[in-house]
Amino acid sequence: MSQYIAPIRDMQFVLHELAGLGELANLPNCEEATPDVVDAIMEEGGKFASGVLAPLNKVGDQNGAIWNNGTVATAPGWKEAYQQFAESGWTAIGCPQEFGGQGLPKLVSTPVSEMFKSANLAFSLGPMLTQGAIEALVLRGSDALKAKFLDKMVAGTWTGTMNLTEPQAGSDLAAVRSKAIPQADGSYLISGQKIFITYGEHDMTDNIIHLVLARLPDAPEGVKGISLFVVPKFMVNDDGSLGARNDVHCVSIEHKLGIHASPTCVMSYGDKGGAVGYLVGEANRGLEYMFIMMNEARFSVGLEGLAISERAYQKALQYARERTQGTELGIKGGGKVAIIKHPDVRRMLMTMKAHVEAMRALAYVTAAALDHAHHHADDAERAKAQAFADLMIPVVKGWCTETGIEMASLGVQVHGGMGYIEETGAAQYLRDARISAIYEGTTGIQANDLIGRKMAREGGQTVKAVIGMMRRLDGNLAEAEGGMMGEHVAVVRAALAQGVSALEQAVEYILATFGSDIKAAHVGAVPMLKLMGIVCGGWQMARAVIAAQRKLSEGTGDSNFYKTKIVTARFFAEHVLPHAASYSHTVCKGAGSALTLDEAMF
Amino acid sequence: MSQYIAPIRDMQFVLHELAGLGELANLPNCEEATPDVVDAIMEEGGKFASGVLAPLNKVGDQNGAIWNNGTVATAPGWKEAYQQFAESGWTAIGCPQEFGGQGLPKLVSTPVSEMFKSANLAFSLGPMLTQGAIEALVLRGSDALKAKFLDKMVAGTWTGTMNLTEPQAGSDLAAVRSKAIPQADGSYLISGQKIFITYGEHDMTDNIIHLVLARLPDAPEGVKGISLFVVPKFMVNDDGSLGARNDVHCVSIEHKLGIHASPTCVMSYGDKGGAVGYLVGEANRGLEYMFIMMNEARFSVGLEGLAISERAYQKALQYARERTQGTELGIKGGGKVAIIKHPDVRRMLMTMKAHVEAMRALAYVTAAALDHAHHHADDAERAKAQAFADLMIPVVKGWCTETGIEMASLGVQVHGGMGYIEETGAAQYLRDARISAIYEGTTGIQANDLIGRKMAREGGQTVKAVIGMMRRLDGNLAEAEGGMMGEHVAVVRAALAQGVSALEQAVEYILATFGSDIKAAHVGAVPMLKLMGIVCGGWQMARAVIAAQRKLSEGTGDSNFYKTKIVTARFFAEHVLPHAASYSHTVCKGAGSALTLDEAMF
Repeated sequence: MSQYIAPIRDMQFVLHELAGLGELANLPNCEEATPDVVDAIMEEGGKFASGVLAPLNKVGDQNGAIWNNGTVATAPGWKEAYQQFAESGWTAIGCPQEFGGQGLPKLVSTPVSEMFKSANLAFSLGPMLTQGAIEALVLRGSDALKAKFLDKMVAGTWTGTMNLTEPQAGSDLAAVRSKAIPQADGSYLISGQKIFITYGEHDMTDNIIHLVLARLPDAPEGVKGISLFVVPKFMVNDDGSLGARNDVHCVSIEHKLGIHASPTCVMSYGDKGGAVGYLVGEANRGLEYMFIMMNEARFSVGLEGLAISERAYQKALQYARERTQGTELGIKGGGKVAIIKHPDVRRMLMTMKAHVEAMRALAYVTAAALDHAHHHADDAERAKAQAFADLMIPVVKGWCTETGIEMASLGVQVHGGMGYIEETGAAQYLRDARISAIYEGTTGIQANDLIGRKMAREGGQTVKAVIGMMRRLDGNLAEAEGGMMGEHVAVVRAALAQGVSALEQAVEYILATFGSDIKAAHVGAVPMLKLMGIVCGGWQMARAVIAAQRKLSEGTGDSNFYKTKIVTARFFAEHVLPHAASYSHTVCKGAGSALTLDEAMF
Repeated sequence: MSQYIAPIRDMQFVLHELAGLGELANLPNCEEATPDVVDAIMEEGGKFASGVLAPLNKVGDQNGAIWNNGTVATAPGWKEAYQQFAESGWTAIGCPQEFGGQGLPKLVSTPVSEMFKSANLAFSLGPMLTQGAIEALVLRGSDALKAKFLDKMVAGTWTGTMNLTEPQAGSDLAAVRSKAIPQADGSYLISGQKIFITYGEHDMTDNIIHLVLARLPDAPEGVKGISLFVVPKFMVNDDGSLGARNDVHCVSIEHKLGIHASPTCVMSYGDKGGAVGYLVGEANRGLEYMFIMMNEARFSVGLEGLAISERAYQKALQYARERTQGTELGIKGGGKVAIIKHPDVRRMLMTMKAHVEAMRALAYVTAAALDHAHHHADDAERAKAQAFADLMIPVVKGWCTETGIEMASLGVQVHGGMGYIEETGAAQYLRDARISAIYEGTTGIQANDLIGRKMAREGGQTVKAVIGMMRRLDGNLAEAEGGMMGEHVAVVRAALAQGVSALEQAVEYILATFGSDIKAAHVGAVPMLKLMGIVCGGWQMARAVIAAQRKLSEGTGDSNFYKTKIVTARFFAEHVLPHAASYSHTVCKGAGSALTLDEAMF
């Protein structure tokens, strides 16, 4: 059995010293996020993750979800764990108080979400999708719809789903064909097939609330003719009791590489005439609503990359400390040692540790920006925070998930031959991690969003501001160089400066090319995304160095933690940041060779 | 069903224009490798791979090998395919004619081996391990052992295995504990447990010949006390008929991430008193013999990375041509297009294509060096070729397998959500590929071998000679710059020059540090291996550019093929080679941060 211990020390560091939790608690509607409350939530979240969810992770992988004649049985223990999850209030943590939620800031729900994803990714997907459905209803649902559905969804009594994809409409949602026919009573009859529907059917709750994209009969072609509907599995009577079974059914589930316990459903709407649904918001604006929510869903999937990396790191570290193999380099006649003594194993563990910490810092700082964007009293501050979050979300999604796959693979490697054996558990993390770079928009889609909507459309305003923030850090780093770990700080400072220059060059190229040669710009999209990830990760590690150096100078706090943070930042500077220049080169130079060949020549 | 078509055009290009097949056929004992013979072998090999092995690949993955009370049933169709494989002479292709083999050069067996691995990796492992066992017997077996076993192993009537690993002895074979007790008749009684034994038990042949590492009672501790034994599953009578069942049994098989159809066995020797075995070569020299063979086994595993990448590329390319999604960038009002039209999909496909071609060139050139090392009439030429092959084998093993994992993962990505569904087949390549960076020595072990035995021990003589060869290419590239695709050539030339400088710096660091700070050198081992892979791959692509440019100038041959080759080399120069500088930086600077932390601080 592999354990999971929530990395609360590092989470607290990021919350307080990088993401500004204290400042956040001064914003309107965030007052409850006091240090005491946050500490208690983190502790309870960690206990639930370690005690309830983590032990079910392998059970879920081995048993999977099982489809039988339209029903889906979740893995042993799943139902009970879900019940406990809902009863403990975890479904409600980030939801509005108006509907029974706890209304806590994103910055507080984020570490808890990380814990649950680390402990059991397949389990965490149900609540994540429900969260998306809740947001859609909060955002655009009528009062009647809110009254009917929201309280029970927030309480976890019912779960929710997001039904976007169809066989011909994956990355391209403009191709959605499902239909919605208006009825005399104001409802609609929905028909069509949806695929890849996470927790589209299961046995954990007695109702499931589907959010569904479909077209009205008179809708225009393409993206501007898609509307959003809410379609319950069981009709809900006015007194809240359940009514008739609706005409929506799970016709099969997928056999996947990983997240076996998360049922990925093919949903059929309207086989018997039409599933009753209700329009959310205005007609033909469904895709627009989706995009509002999608930002947060993408952020949440980005967290999966961080979460799996943390879990893989913990497991690899434990193995490296326990597994004895070979003798220590340079020690003649010494005995066998734990493999953590071998330089290459240390390199692998440091690679995992450094990436985890950089990803966590970037993700939590982005969560704080989302809170500022929602809650700040000042319009300009809200807009600035939103622009920052908008820029960072494709980076958090794309870079953290791609990195998550690499880190999980490295975790397998630390285990050697044992890593390839399924019983060990390291391989599950790799299998589970692989989906995160695909769903909620592939890495390519994130990268296109990054260079298009988030950079070129606004002439690079936000990314240039971020580059400015990175540059202004140089003074603080120069100052910190004078401190007791100055030698390490100097390395971080130099590497960040080079990384920022590389980033700036690539941004200039994208801005110059996007309008004139859009294909050339897009060849550089994924390299640009990786470049942004690396440099933003390095930026956050540099901020961590400054914070740590300050604490060391003051002589306050756990000096071992802060020293370790500085060394880890240096590792990131020496092993990860150097690739920024390579990616920048590829962004600026790599278009021609990718676009030259005739398709027949591949 | 996913097809596999042997990439014979590119294979022929590499054989003839980069690896010197013509020159090779002039060497003693290589005369049979005439162009006609090689063409015929490639064609037949391709047919067998596509027609017999590829269709079983998914069958094997889904059914796996099944253990039942000591026996192992291979997947449906496996036994018949193996019989056809042996009858067609594929087991004998590279074996000495003296024992019924065809005695063809490594350079000729290598592309055939690539085809079989592409078509069905799990199947190919049985013959690969048998090959290792044959080589051990050819190399060090007594005439009596040769007479008893070799003909039938070469003919494929019996298969062979390599029994090295024990639970406490993985990367560290010095820890082997299995015992061999001498008997009055000159045989030995072997006892102990071996794990991770590929095809240790199966139902494809009526006997299995195990090569086993074990210790004699009076053997010294450590690596110098290990001897090599041959232990047949069934005793073999003097007339070649099978005798009594020997005391070696498969007690279980592993449940693995991939290569499900290849039984990975736990073998128990001597549960009923001892398995009868015969000493191979001299006592206490078993590990030394293993290392001689291991070079070629590692080369063969390196080919797996190439082979899986080729298969993943073919599948991704087919999907990208067929899958319609979205409209073409920059075209207003155009219809839906195949995803190969999207720049990021092209980038992914080009990444796969460029890596495949670079790996193939490096691997085949190394195979040619092994042939020169075996067959050249001149002692000095043999030694030079052996040194080159020795240097390149950890690179081929480490770099091609790590790259194979990345390319298989990219293949999944091209498929989007469908890539995560097991029925699609792309995920199998990723699962199968993952083992190749672990067995026959992990990437870390290869990298340590590279910087230690292959660089530092000889003061960098061979790697410096290789760097010299790379540098001398610059003149030819300068000349080719004047040709019709000169713009592309110029990019390749500049990128190679920078890559070579980066490599040289890193080599100097390793040579300077290995003796004085061995741990620091080893932190850089894997980055060094990746750096070597990238630069050597770029070197071979540059050689390909020169060959292609020559053909284009002459106006001979398929000009589309040669133009494509040059563009592909440019892609490698712009998207892959830039990372050489980053890895070099990490080799030279990255030791401190990896070694500083106290183990408790991880």
